[in-house]
Amino acid sequence: MTVLTAEQVQALIRAGLPIAEDIELCIDRLDAQGVLARVPFHTKLIRPGGTLSGPTIMALADAAMYAVVLGRLGRVEMAVTSNLNINFLVKPKPVDLLAEARILRLSRRQAVCEVSLYSLGNAEELVAHVTGTYALPL
Amino acid sequence: MTVLTAEQVQALIRAGLPIAEDIELCIDRLDAQGVLARVPFHTKLIRPGGTLSGPTIMALADAAMYAVVLGRLGRVEMAVTSNLNINFLVKPKPVDLLAEARILRLSRRQAVCEVSLYSLGNAEELVAHVTGTYALPL
Amino acid sequence: MTVLTAEQVQALIRAGLPIAEDIELCIDRLDAQGVLARVPFHTKLIRPGGTLSGPTIMALADAAMYAVVLGRLGRVEMAVTSNLNINFLVKPKPVDLLAEARILRLSRRQAVCEVSLYSLGNAEELVAHVTGTYALPL
Amino acid sequence: MTVLTAEQVQALIRAGLPIAEDIELCIDRLDAQGVLARVPFHTKLIRPGGTLSGPTIMALADAAMYAVVLGRLGRVEMAVTSNLNINFLVKPKPVDLLAEARILRLSRRQAVCEVSLYSLGNAEELVAHVTGTYALPL
Repeated sequence: MTVLTAEQVQALIRAGLPIAEDIELCIDRLDAQGVLARVPFHTKLIRPGGTLSGPTIMALADAAMYAVVLGRLGRVEMAVTSNLNINFLVKPKPVDLLAEARILRLSRRQAVCEVSLYSLGNAEELVAHVTGTYALPL
Repeated sequence: MTVLTAEQVQALIRAGLPIAEDIELCIDRLDAQGVLARVPFHTKLIRPGGTLSGPTIMALADAAMYAVVLGRLGRVEMAVTSNLNINFLVKPKPVDLLAEARILRLSRRQAVCEVSLYSLGNAEELVAHVTGTYALPL
Repeated sequence: MTVLTAEQVQALIRAGLPIAEDIELCIDRLDAQGVLARVPFHTKLIRPGGTLSGPTIMALADAAMYAVVLGRLGRVEMAVTSNLNINFLVKPKPVDLLAEARILRLSRRQAVCEVSLYSLGNAEELVAHVTGTYALPL
Repeated sequence: MTVLTAEQVQALIRAGLPIAEDIELCIDRLDAQGVLARVPFHTKLIRPGGTLSGPTIMALADAAMYAVVLGRLGRVEMAVTSNLNINFLVKPKPVDLLAEARILRLSRRQAVCEVSLYSLGNAEELVAHVTGTYALPL
């Protein structure tokens, strides 16, 4: 059960977070199981070796966690990331990058989330894996 | 002992990483103790509540680790972040954000780094704290 | 495909790691998908509030990662944990604690693993979630 | 400024946490700057290669964070670890292992801590580095 739609969450994040607008963040799906977020491939996001940069990957993961929290709880825009841990696993391909986020544990204080990131068309090979915590306004 | 200067490292990072150019990343100091990196305050980097966004803070921390590794080892541009863990501690002020990075452990395979981030003029209050690992080309 | 059985891995870990013997670590299942490890409930492992202690939970998670690496690669006893990140989610119940571990990414240098921990009979509610890295002997 | 002494904190932790008693955890120093905790070397704590096991190192780090929180806040025994991230840097020597813990940020909800671990007589070479969060009873 979600209280906001994918379109509403995408608009909220893009309005509030200029970096989400910069990377053209999309929320492709939002349902009770979680979120599928996407950053379209841009040449401006690459790093040496021709892949998406680490900061772009982290920005996508953070936005996906924010989206899953907003989708579940509604307009808690003041929720903030308190911890994020990322393991970079393989270089992303020069295509769109996808992020599937879900909530591992929701308490009154915080939401602990997990995000699996992979290149479009290659869901079996993780590009990165993230766990993180959003602190919720009490 | 470093093998590159702050100016050389700043130029290398900005040339290779468009997001570093976007946030106007500066390497203010580079010596045997580590690196002081800085992102000038821009209104385009804010998030709800008027503070620098989490992704900007993570981008700065990652760049500071990259800088300290380049400074110590020279032109190992193919070094890549393998893990990054960040704790967000207080909201940054609307001023430049500074990052002091140092190497905790350098082995043949990897460099484990620590970064303390704080707002300009307020070094006593950490905005965020990062540990991370750069995998080195063998 | 695994190269060692659950029994072999359990014996290797218990022989090499006295703390695994102390907590009576069991490897209940080992297959291509990963490992199911278990620590039987003991009153000596509790902490204030009557639950299994954090160090016991971490020891189980670490052993489960070690088991999944040994199961996949064989007798690489010199593999060592290089990073471990744990989120504690709910207090474990006073029953056996289970840990399901799988490998997220196996490279020549390292294995990045994920572990989901839950109380016996309550697999839907995670007690803790771990990601970690084992450095492999080259 | 601390509200409990090193002796009081050591007694509280050992009384409440059997694993701390097992590893003979000592709180050697507790002051406004933080805590120095120690686990005496025991042969029962070793792992393959003759060094202290990862779980023992994690147990010490966790106890050191707990000690610094108790020292600052008093008898908040119900404080619990919510996150712990550890980087293992070099194998500990077969001597006592020390842990210096300090609070990076104390808020009403939580204490974010940092711990540097090293072998007795070798403070310059870190054995492991930990950051972690204790959730505080509201």
